[in-house]
Amino acid sequence: MADNSRKAALPPLRIALAGLGTVGTGVIRLLEANGAMVAARAGRDMRIVAVSARERSRDRGIDLSRYDWHDDMTEMPAREDVDAVVELVGGSDGPALTLARRTLGAGKSLVTANKAMVAHHGLDLAELAAQNGAALKFEAAVAGGIPVVKGLREGAAANAIEQIYGILNGTSNFILSAMEDTGADFDEMLASAQERGFAEADPTFDIEGVDAAHKLAILAAIAFGCRIDFASVETQGISRVRAADIRQAATLGFAIRLIGMADTEEQEGMTKLLQRVRPCLVPKDHPLAAVDGPTNAVVTEGNFSGRLLFQGAGAGDGPTASAVVADLIDLARGEAGGETSAPFSVPVADLKAMPPADPSGRKGRTYLRFTVYDRPGVLAEITAAMRDAEVSIESLIQEGRSDDGSEVLVAMVTHEGPEGCVTKAIELLADAEGLTAPPLVMPILQA
Amino acid sequence: MADNSRKAALPPLRIALAGLGTVGTGVIRLLEANGAMVAARAGRDMRIVAVSARERSRDRGIDLSRYDWHDDMTEMPAREDVDAVVELVGGSDGPALTLARRTLGAGKSLVTANKAMVAHHGLDLAELAAQNGAALKFEAAVAGGIPVVKGLREGAAANAIEQIYGILNGTSNFILSAMEDTGADFDEMLASAQERGFAEADPTFDIEGVDAAHKLAILAAIAFGCRIDFASVETQGISRVRAADIRQAATLGFAIRLIGMADTEEQEGMTKLLQRVRPCLVPKDHPLAAVDGPTNAVVTEGNFSGRLLFQGAGAGDGPTASAVVADLIDLARGEAGGETSAPFSVPVADLKAMPPADPSGRKGRTYLRFTVYDRPGVLAEITAAMRDAEVSIESLIQEGRSDDGSEVLVAMVTHEGPEGCVTKAIELLADAEGLTAPPLVMPILQA
Repeated sequence: MADNSRKAALPPLRIALAGLGTVGTGVIRLLEANGAMVAARAGRDMRIVAVSARERSRDRGIDLSRYDWHDDMTEMPAREDVDAVVELVGGSDGPALTLARRTLGAGKSLVTANKAMVAHHGLDLAELAAQNGAALKFEAAVAGGIPVVKGLREGAAANAIEQIYGILNGTSNFILSAMEDTGADFDEMLASAQERGFAEADPTFDIEGVDAAHKLAILAAIAFGCRIDFASVETQGISRVRAADIRQAATLGFAIRLIGMADTEEQEGMTKLLQRVRPCLVPKDHPLAAVDGPTNAVVTEGNFSGRLLFQGAGAGDGPTASAVVADLIDLARGEAGGETSAPFSVPVADLKAMPPADPSGRKGRTYLRFTVYDRPGVLAEITAAMRDAEVSIESLIQEGRSDDGSEVLVAMVTHEGPEGCVTKAIELLADAEGLTAPPLVMPILQA
Repeated sequence: MADNSRKAALPPLRIALAGLGTVGTGVIRLLEANGAMVAARAGRDMRIVAVSARERSRDRGIDLSRYDWHDDMTEMPAREDVDAVVELVGGSDGPALTLARRTLGAGKSLVTANKAMVAHHGLDLAELAAQNGAALKFEAAVAGGIPVVKGLREGAAANAIEQIYGILNGTSNFILSAMEDTGADFDEMLASAQERGFAEADPTFDIEGVDAAHKLAILAAIAFGCRIDFASVETQGISRVRAADIRQAATLGFAIRLIGMADTEEQEGMTKLLQRVRPCLVPKDHPLAAVDGPTNAVVTEGNFSGRLLFQGAGAGDGPTASAVVADLIDLARGEAGGETSAPFSVPVADLKAMPPADPSGRKGRTYLRFTVYDRPGVLAEITAAMRDAEVSIESLIQEGRSDDGSEVLVAMVTHEGPEGCVTKAIELLADAEGLTAPPLVMPILQA
């Protein structure tokens, strides 16, 4: 009979922390505020022994004198007094990747919030972790403080996952729900998000769907046991969504949300993977329609669990630090058994390469919005293209002229039909002279 | 360098399964349908070697001939070829408890869906597990297929939990949301729930809040590091909620939900615990207001994570089997390190005894509904009691006579004020001759 109640006498888990931005300082603040409780739950103390960041002198409001400072973060894994490294530097390559490789190569565990690095190099890093008996943990890389990596990898592990989708970018969701609340247009709400710290000075990764695509590619690998394939995520951002689209969608009973969605399909005798990040029309009675502000939410449909929803803060120093320290507690508890070989739920060698699925045969309803010159015949041109592509229109709304009188907005919702027909209709209109800009196409979420 | 990629060569996890009702047969069906995938994720096969149930001959639609049958389930833990026992028999005592004790006493791990047993005997069982180096796992005991035990014990482990609350009973939620949708009264919707398999022939545990109280007591122990105290859960069911209450609540912008809620408060120099299961008025824009049918949802507020929401099917064979097998996968992966000593997040010896908190000083708004005889002076009597107890009324609605003319319904919402005042007002009205029945008191959820 082993007496595991003496676990509290285990030596501390010794941590090197790279990156002292808001999340890094958040981790330090969390361990200061909740240290005794974290130690009680982890069964041992957590001790930060070394830190590194770009600037040593910056005032971060915390006392760094207790920790050894490294100008070169990539030296830290070699320290004999380090058991685990926390990487909060960011960037898919560069020092973060060097640090990750050295950590795992030294047989030490890595905890990271770096979605770009995991999306691009997660498989190599997982391989390295397995070879060296180390754990690779990245709860904080997906959906901030929401334990969705754990929920999917462990909580839903008994299920064949049929679909995973959700709101994976807090900045975009803040902007879309603010547009909904205020009636203001995209540019104005982006500026407001920037002022309030919900969007970065260069918001491209957030508003163009790249950040959500990183997270989706990671979730898809865990859900479907496939190799991460970030490059194949079809990505469309929210910068072309207008106040008028949100208004039309609301009239029809929908909210607009940036949705990352992945599922698989048998095509040509193979399992293929569809991964998409797109603004979608979400029915008002769907839980995702009610998710507002910088909140994230992930829905997964398991063949036994049914629908599971995980919701919470998708970013921010506190929530992200919460996820980082949860990973450290797992390591300290010794609950990372399978993670040394299978951070993506199955060993890397067993992850299947899944080619991108062709979505053209999928049936669904679609919202299409055209901006057109206010002159005769344009509507006929659009509806003729729809007819020729066999797209059946369920409803059509034509708005009055824009304020400057230069264009008219035409929005329509199709009946359920194959996606390929909508794509064809858009192609037929590629050279249409009546359009002032390419049409905006948004699927209607069916769930 | 350890090569953990050879984990797949581990021997199978050998399982004894006690109880072959819908959940037990669900576990067998799950392992048949998802077996290869489960083995890939677990790093080893799952093999049921022995089964037991009350009736051997009943047709369950599955082939039991592959498993050794035991008339006496409590023999199974002694089998040398059993690594873990799954207990799906139910009942807080009796054979289920004997089985649990023998399993853990033999140093084997126990997976159970038995909320009553864990609520009543969880601490003793956890002690026994720790003494014998075995794991006690009960994801399926709380909120069906939702991985909320894991979410709280591991996912949110870095946080001081400020509050945990949610919809913990699918039957009650089905009835309340059906009353909302149809306008029908409680008895009719209970009958409908029974017809549709969402309520048992004797629905007492579900509709009177006992089942939710079991789950709440378990969650509170994990969240607050306290000893399970089921006996102190203040429990009020939904059987007195009328269609008229739901209508009034809707008029005021609320849905009625049966909410289990726990938090702590410093009182008299001690940390005290408040645990309550009560029908509450939930603001329409709160995520819990939108939870309908037999769905469960748990909200936890962490001091760093902020609000986390876990939602999914709260019962049913598929979802519950999903949770049972997730626990088995944890065991197979060897990720139960800390669980052998701390199924409630910290070792049992470190769980604090927290006396029940006195809620009378808490401030909140309250919905009160009186049924009164239609005669002069009754309303004056009620409002005088409110005045004397210093309860300030925000709005009051008096409905016309009931169909049989015997009574009139008076509903009111108070301004924010101490709970103790409302309690006093109700006491003052205890002997009021104008009331046809004791008033119904429901708090308004503040969140």
